[in-house]
Amino acid sequence: MAPVPQWVRDLKVPSGSQGTELLTQERAKSNVDVDSVSNFLFTKAGLEKKHAILKILEAEKVFDKSQNYFAGRVDRFETALARAKKLRQLEVKHGWEMQEKSIANELISEPGPYGLHESMFLITLRDQGNAEQHEKFLKPAQAYKYIGCYAQTELGHGSNVRGLETTATWNPDDKTFTIHSPHLTASKWWIGSLGRTANHAVVMAQLIMNGKSLGPHPFVVQIRDLETHQPLKDIHIGDIGPKFGYNTMDNGFLLFNHVKVPHISMLARFSSIDPKTNKYVRPASPALVYGTLTWVRSNIVMQAGGVLARGVTIATRYCSVRKQFQDRDAPEWERGENQVLNYTMVQIRLLPLLAATYALHFTGKGMMSLYNANQKKIAADAGKAGSQQGRGAGPEETNSSSDLLADLHATSCGLKSLASYTAVEGLEMCRRACGGHGYSSFSGIGPWYSDYLPTATWEGDNYMLTQQVARYLLKTARSVLKGNEPTNDTMSILSNFLSRQDQGAAFDVLGNDADLVSAFAWRSAFLTFEALRHRDEQKRAWNSLLVDFYRLSRAHSQYMVVKNFYETLQSPSSSSDLNPETLAVMHKLFRLYALHTLEQEASEFYTSSAVTVRQIQLARTSSVMKLLEEVRPHAVRLVDAWDFPDWQLDSSLGRKDGKVYEDMFYRASELNPLNDIVVDPYPESPVLFKSREPKSKL
Amino acid sequence: MAPVPQWVRDLKVPSGSQGTELLTQERAKSNVDVDSVSNFLFTKAGLEKKHAILKILEAEKVFDKSQNYFAGRVDRFETALARAKKLRQLEVKHGWEMQEKSIANELISEPGPYGLHESMFLITLRDQGNAEQHEKFLKPAQAYKYIGCYAQTELGHGSNVRGLETTATWNPDDKTFTIHSPHLTASKWWIGSLGRTANHAVVMAQLIMNGKSLGPHPFVVQIRDLETHQPLKDIHIGDIGPKFGYNTMDNGFLLFNHVKVPHISMLARFSSIDPKTNKYVRPASPALVYGTLTWVRSNIVMQAGGVLARGVTIATRYCSVRKQFQDRDAPEWERGENQVLNYTMVQIRLLPLLAATYALHFTGKGMMSLYNANQKKIAADAGKAGSQQGRGAGPEETNSSSDLLADLHATSCGLKSLASYTAVEGLEMCRRACGGHGYSSFSGIGPWYSDYLPTATWEGDNYMLTQQVARYLLKTARSVLKGNEPTNDTMSILSNFLSRQDQGAAFDVLGNDADLVSAFAWRSAFLTFEALRHRDEQKRAWNSLLVDFYRLSRAHSQYMVVKNFYETLQSPSSSSDLNPETLAVMHKLFRLYALHTLEQEASEFYTSSAVTVRQIQLARTSSVMKLLEEVRPHAVRLVDAWDFPDWQLDSSLGRKDGKVYEDMFYRASELNPLNDIVVDPYPESPVLFKSREPKSKL
Repeated sequence: MAPVPQWVRDLKVPSGSQGTELLTQERAKSNVDVDSVSNFLFTKAGLEKKHAILKILEAEKVFDKSQNYFAGRVDRFETALARAKKLRQLEVKHGWEMQEKSIANELISEPGPYGLHESMFLITLRDQGNAEQHEKFLKPAQAYKYIGCYAQTELGHGSNVRGLETTATWNPDDKTFTIHSPHLTASKWWIGSLGRTANHAVVMAQLIMNGKSLGPHPFVVQIRDLETHQPLKDIHIGDIGPKFGYNTMDNGFLLFNHVKVPHISMLARFSSIDPKTNKYVRPASPALVYGTLTWVRSNIVMQAGGVLARGVTIATRYCSVRKQFQDRDAPEWERGENQVLNYTMVQIRLLPLLAATYALHFTGKGMMSLYNANQKKIAADAGKAGSQQGRGAGPEETNSSSDLLADLHATSCGLKSLASYTAVEGLEMCRRACGGHGYSSFSGIGPWYSDYLPTATWEGDNYMLTQQVARYLLKTARSVLKGNEPTNDTMSILSNFLSRQDQGAAFDVLGNDADLVSAFAWRSAFLTFEALRHRDEQKRAWNSLLVDFYRLSRAHSQYMVVKNFYETLQSPSSSSDLNPETLAVMHKLFRLYALHTLEQEASEFYTSSAVTVRQIQLARTSSVMKLLEEVRPHAVRLVDAWDFPDWQLDSSLGRKDGKVYEDMFYRASELNPLNDIVVDPYPESPVLFKSREPKSKL
Repeated sequence: MAPVPQWVRDLKVPSGSQGTELLTQERAKSNVDVDSVSNFLFTKAGLEKKHAILKILEAEKVFDKSQNYFAGRVDRFETALARAKKLRQLEVKHGWEMQEKSIANELISEPGPYGLHESMFLITLRDQGNAEQHEKFLKPAQAYKYIGCYAQTELGHGSNVRGLETTATWNPDDKTFTIHSPHLTASKWWIGSLGRTANHAVVMAQLIMNGKSLGPHPFVVQIRDLETHQPLKDIHIGDIGPKFGYNTMDNGFLLFNHVKVPHISMLARFSSIDPKTNKYVRPASPALVYGTLTWVRSNIVMQAGGVLARGVTIATRYCSVRKQFQDRDAPEWERGENQVLNYTMVQIRLLPLLAATYALHFTGKGMMSLYNANQKKIAADAGKAGSQQGRGAGPEETNSSSDLLADLHATSCGLKSLASYTAVEGLEMCRRACGGHGYSSFSGIGPWYSDYLPTATWEGDNYMLTQQVARYLLKTARSVLKGNEPTNDTMSILSNFLSRQDQGAAFDVLGNDADLVSAFAWRSAFLTFEALRHRDEQKRAWNSLLVDFYRLSRAHSQYMVVKNFYETLQSPSSSSDLNPETLAVMHKLFRLYALHTLEQEASEFYTSSAVTVRQIQLARTSSVMKLLEEVRPHAVRLVDAWDFPDWQLDSSLGRKDGKVYEDMFYRASELNPLNDIVVDPYPESPVLFKSREPKSKL
């Protein structure tokens, strides 16, 4: 790389535009107590743990991020594997538990090739294996002698597990299974950690006995040689190629050509084959599997706030440093440009997202405690066998144990969809709020967005999931219509709607926070009974109602977010942990989130008569605009409270010290490998001038 | 790469899921005349030209696309430059004109390093240079001896040209200019073709005479040595680094340390310095520059339909091949999955976008002919000097010549914003409609989306631009309020609204297409007068109205799209070129686009009393759903009509023959370089097992 001349090194950012200065001014404008908000979000102990781990990681050269945005896929993957290895070494060395490891992974912020080994592979072996299988598979996996993955999705089959084509046929003669891929579409596909890394896989395959399929079951299969790491005979494996993001992960494909595995390969905790009698032993408790998915989804909700907060942090800081144009009402030729964050068109894009980061975080917290409470209940019920999966068609009646499960499941589906959607859309909004520079990888938003994007698809496609919410709400509405007493919040809002339906609603959404929450509940109940009428009275086809169901799920999930946000601020810990000034700002964030959402979904709110047209107009033209003005001065402190280290953000635009332009320039001018080549620009000559021969075969 | 075993090669896609079969069935279901629609969109001659050029490109090895999705940035850039060179050779060889070259570029579908030379550099030299400068700069540039770029944007300054910091100081003693970058933020930034390729630049710099700034002016500056291609003394250049997309282009930075250039460097067609008297000669006709931007924007509108159509083509074909789940109303255990395109939740995402591709294309066509008509008018007015730019503050009065210009300008701003926004959002929607596989680069949507994304920011940020539309509509409304007779459509809809305001509207939006267009006009007029009241009566700050202005611009632009679509279908050529069956389907597309938009923006429609709540409900639950059902069978033929060659789409999912899974598998298994490495998976060992030494310095 050509050396940077001294006159370039001497250049400064002009006074008045210096980021450090501008961010200092921003921070001086607000009295929000950053530390207490950080503690409220993460606890003091959590923050200390994070900073201790950060120090350890920063000291290791392998975690240096400076070439992340430049490196090609093969290099990035190799580096990611080197990091995964080092991280495992650190884990052993420091005796880290799951929480510490996960903090480290969040700081590193890239999917790693051990990812699926450490999550799905180990968890599935633990939860679905019996004692013998724990000894044979789980122990070497925990010792990283077996590196595994979880092979469910196929090239032709995604969310629909029943459609899987891979077969595992029981051979009673030699007590083995034959794993086979009958078609090209049966190829396992998208399997994380499989492409290059894993030597074992949990393979989901249709269990075939006596020519009959018993549905998908999990099998532990060795796929590569433990010494040479070459695929075993009759197994074809590879990486599936580049993706929109997630390129540090080796998502892979996998095909079997009549591969025999022993009886022990089928994970046997919940269902098994008795090798002596050749009889199939029925599943014991599918509810637990169901529970795992619910836990994963709750976790996604919890994380979505933080995922979005990274983008909001970067954009808010940058829009405080960036100056562009004069205020149009200022004298035409007045010198001095305006901070971008002062424009209402920027505020309306960023500040409701800032509010959403808190809303999602608090909702996630609420979900997790609901989950933990329910886990206890489920454990107590575990003895009672044969609880239904609640997946059958038509109006089902279930017992109270699976009622609780269904409630949590529906909640987690809808909120997973809304939360990950909010984070995805919000990150892209943040990137655009950064104007042209948002397009540079150095913004740190684009790569983060690209890596996060699959969250909208996995653990239940965001669109598909909304059917589960609708199904649950319809079922609950039927129960309420029958006059059953409310046993949970969903039943309460539905029965409250029924009883007040004729009087109509008169919610003071602009003046009263509790009424604001009630308006969201009202709209959700209205849409529920409307959908029920379509389905049960008008007997409309399920498929014709999917769009309505999507809207219903969204409405109900927004209600839950608003409710969780409200309840968090009403809780005693809010008043004790936050000083009154800070708490008042948090209340404004709540109102901004709720009123902005209400205004965005205006048409549903007044179709349901939850609010009047006049209220919507006032919310739009007055309340929301006023809240933007009131929240604006606190914006930088409110993102500071998320406490992202610069090392984690890896963003020129989002630097805590505001040295935006210096950092952009440094990365372009001193780290960029493209500047190492000298081209010959003329049409008739070869591409490269001197420094190296043309690499490609062109 | 490990060879693919024979048993893998022998695998097939199961019958019933074979893409070729499924797409054949789709095509058989519809009578839409694909060829006549293609001709209607592009003309027969245009299509023939395209296919001839495609043949030429396919025959050149350098244009082979098979490694595009895999290659790292440096390789991709070198390949892109090799392609640019070859393309220039082909242009000379075949005597291609601008249109042919642009067809070739569309087929190649990647930004190339000659891009800014061939557009902005040559155009600026031509339009803003005088005869002497044409001789000295334009001729060698046309011969590709000078390769140039257009250096306007700076690190600290984007859209606001007045804020540029680079200076060009006139030295009366030796009749030279000194080009200088006073601060780091003055560094030119984002300049296409600059990073590695250009040896010349048109540099926009503040002209300083006698210590006073006369605003930004264009200067032609040599920046690299013509032999060695090294930067000249006191010039610092480089590529700005990786971006979210557009990585085949070398967007660059550029700094000057008191670089002297001769008098001839300042492009002198519209303003100049008389070297004898040292006097500045005023700009002759800035209106022409203004016109160029308008042309560029109209072109973006024109292209947006085609850009989106690529995504819609890929997603529609793939959703016809992809099967997932059973219809929920079908018997629970029935075999056979449903085509994804049959789900209404997929239809509502894809089919309105299909309609939008046509809507935008026809709107673009309408804009271009408006532009051409106005160019003639402007040329006729060119003699009249000193026409205003129409950029001043407050209520301006202008003459009829600049009135026409302002109308076209406002139209192009609003439509550029809406059209590129629709394409960007729509492409991402298409990617998600492809489910998990949409995330693979082989979908062909992600990379295309990433490359297109900057269109939302350049040639006027999509948010900023909406202010111009609002300003124009306010001005027009003032004129109508004064009782001036309508001279164009905008005035007509505003004065129509005024005259009928008291009676109210009663548009039959569900039954009458002309009424549907009128409802869009009504809403636009309503919002215009509402904004006018805020600004002129309530004297509200400009900044406080930006959000309203954004909505207003969007509403007015949607009206124009609906109107253009409607008028195209009413035109005699539609009836003569399309058979009645095909035309009827196009009418359904029109209604789908209009009613779906109306429903999306419901709250503005009934706040304005353009429609009733009941109409909106019917539009949502009945009309739109019915149109989805009616358009569904024609979807594949309607995307076929866009006539994208597979070579152009470069998409596994969007293949015309439906061989989706075969192609995904082939690319992953046989083209993917990551599969060439064998790793050692264990935590304590180095990353690579055998095949090569670890590359990185880890």
